[in-house]
Amino acid sequence: MNYNHIFDQAIDRLHGEGRYRVFIDILRNKGAFPNARCFAGHNGPKPITVWCSNDYLAMGQHPKVVAAMEEALHDVGAGSGGTRNIGGNTHYHIELERELAELHGKEGALLFTSGYVSNDATLSTLGKLLPGCVIFSDELNHASMIAGIRNSGCEKRIWRHNDVAHLEELLAAEASDVPKLIAFESVYSMDGDVAPIHAICDLAEKYGALTYIDEVHAVGMYGKRGGGISERDEAAHRIDIIEGTLGKAFGVMGGYIAADTRIIDCIRSYAPGFIFTTSISPVLAAGVLASVKHLKQSSAERDGQQAAAAMLKAKFRDAGLPVMDSTTHIVPLMVGDPVRAKKISDILLAEYGVYVQPINFPTVPRGTERLRFTPGPSHTEVMMDELTTALVEIWERLELQLRVAA
Amino acid sequence: MNYNHIFDQAIDRLHGEGRYRVFIDILRNKGAFPNARCFAGHNGPKPITVWCSNDYLAMGQHPKVVAAMEEALHDVGAGSGGTRNIGGNTHYHIELERELAELHGKEGALLFTSGYVSNDATLSTLGKLLPGCVIFSDELNHASMIAGIRNSGCEKRIWRHNDVAHLEELLAAEASDVPKLIAFESVYSMDGDVAPIHAICDLAEKYGALTYIDEVHAVGMYGKRGGGISERDEAAHRIDIIEGTLGKAFGVMGGYIAADTRIIDCIRSYAPGFIFTTSISPVLAAGVLASVKHLKQSSAERDGQQAAAAMLKAKFRDAGLPVMDSTTHIVPLMVGDPVRAKKISDILLAEYGVYVQPINFPTVPRGTERLRFTPGPSHTEVMMDELTTALVEIWERLELQLRVAA
Repeated sequence: MNYNHIFDQAIDRLHGEGRYRVFIDILRNKGAFPNARCFAGHNGPKPITVWCSNDYLAMGQHPKVVAAMEEALHDVGAGSGGTRNIGGNTHYHIELERELAELHGKEGALLFTSGYVSNDATLSTLGKLLPGCVIFSDELNHASMIAGIRNSGCEKRIWRHNDVAHLEELLAAEASDVPKLIAFESVYSMDGDVAPIHAICDLAEKYGALTYIDEVHAVGMYGKRGGGISERDEAAHRIDIIEGTLGKAFGVMGGYIAADTRIIDCIRSYAPGFIFTTSISPVLAAGVLASVKHLKQSSAERDGQQAAAAMLKAKFRDAGLPVMDSTTHIVPLMVGDPVRAKKISDILLAEYGVYVQPINFPTVPRGTERLRFTPGPSHTEVMMDELTTALVEIWERLELQLRVAA
Repeated sequence: MNYNHIFDQAIDRLHGEGRYRVFIDILRNKGAFPNARCFAGHNGPKPITVWCSNDYLAMGQHPKVVAAMEEALHDVGAGSGGTRNIGGNTHYHIELERELAELHGKEGALLFTSGYVSNDATLSTLGKLLPGCVIFSDELNHASMIAGIRNSGCEKRIWRHNDVAHLEELLAAEASDVPKLIAFESVYSMDGDVAPIHAICDLAEKYGALTYIDEVHAVGMYGKRGGGISERDEAAHRIDIIEGTLGKAFGVMGGYIAADTRIIDCIRSYAPGFIFTTSISPVLAAGVLASVKHLKQSSAERDGQQAAAAMLKAKFRDAGLPVMDSTTHIVPLMVGDPVRAKKISDILLAEYGVYVQPINFPTVPRGTERLRFTPGPSHTEVMMDELTTALVEIWERLELQLRVAA
């Protein structure tokens, strides 16, 4: 067997399609985000502005978060030292789970090492516990939900993105005594649109289905206390399982679900991806706890982010740049080709000190490659003007079309 | 559909079998490990001694590790803010991967959020990249390897634990042009025995198979520089992929693989569990980097652990306690019943301030429930004498059999 040949071919396919990924080597400057240092292809670190971070509210650099992590580090040390069942269950984990449950108005919550693992472990385990369950999945669901659904071994029905009529058609086609689970996201991170939660819950009630919502791009950012779109739309009580991340708006790392005690206890007791893994570091748990508590009572970060997103969208639109329809904090510019998207990104980094990653397949469908900007409360209007000017120059240099402003 | 009823039944099954898990709520005391505080069922925190941590060398409390994490926290903040491809690739990640590659004498390494994810993502992706691949798996492989193998969709052949004759039988039964992957562990964590690495590599060479070794209970602890059993046995160059954890002997959190550049590039480019997840916090990466570097040049922790394990085994044996045959740092006491194992553990915690978790199904096969002690360099002889006396008292109280010392 010539294994090297097979591996070489796999990599060649990526180069051939122009979607071989090069990771940009950076260090952020705490206290000065979105400023950072870039190490790639330069002599020594070069200052850059980061436009594609999922630390949406810069909470990863918030003094309360940093102080809480420092305190935990000195109180209990670096890691938890075990699984939740064997030595790795600390008081920080328990307090954080209580806080997250309360945030979503649920009886309980459960921590995972990442949002990816939350989705994979929970969906696969739910599917296995419910005999003959059919899972209904939005066609744009995240890779981690797709993994969980596939690993559940359940029958899957894919409904057209945010199309509740299609979802109803699929639900109505199943017998009423079949267990059903509807899995969807609140904010879709690459397009920036939002699910019709109440309409989906109406169908879930009508057809007797459980509901599972991924709020990773919404927790901390929507709702009066950061409970996500389900809080903003007053729908949290209608959702059975709310899944979130600790690594985006909350600024640290990890994932979780919130649900009633019965479901939490089942996942806790049956999910291999929860049982057989070292629990998250108490240092991370302490940082997230401070972050969640802060964002429960402060809306300044949320308001700042929404204002920045609105301003950047307006500037892009006025300049004729192909900004996509997004109703959220995410600002995607459609390019439609992986090689061109990478080229624009490379020029921005090399010539303008602007870091925005090109987004290509498999993160988005082929032919919809894009640049995805995530302005936050710390991006200034001056930064936005510089960025817009740079993009217009590159668009013209590469002979891409600018829309004539209305 | 009465979902509550189904979930209740699932939990009732666990209670019925006596294996419903209660997590012990603790906080370790940095600088005083294995001392800790326990919050469960007591008025206020109560001091305990931890005997079941996988922070085997107490590196989670090492001054160099804590200092490195504090520095990173203040330099770049709490989280990475993105996936490795989108904003979350920091200089700490790159340096740590270089260090881990060097530790194992490989060209490259790749970080994951946990050892569980390392195994799941790598094995499932390898299996998908190699058309028609058959995976040969030791029957005692960890749940995360089993998950990865199942998720690969490949044919699987299970060989009897550490039985190379059986492995050869299974390898010989496949056609020579079928891609083959042999997956096994070095130290099996619940029994404490070790795989015959060279004999397995001989077979891999004879039958043209790739080799994958899980060294999570060995990295940091075996070999002159902590490269694991594959370093100790001078076999690392014969293994294609070495997998390890950052959450046990290295004391922090996360997982990795080390392999040649070609394989690393394939997993990096194709594994959803790597691509679609926020990278580990730079604070964790900085701590691990300090830990790996320290254990490369210091053997005091390894020597202390081996001495402690040998002493505890001898004390248990002399007292007639049913210590299992382990050739490593792991000291398991066979109980053989989940209810009794939990009872012993409960008495130890409530009356003696000793924390050791009962190990039950699905972590070990039914009927082999046990207590698993992990003495480290900080467990003193006085602690061991107290523990042994306590166990003998409980064994007599519960009318369990003590072996007559030889």
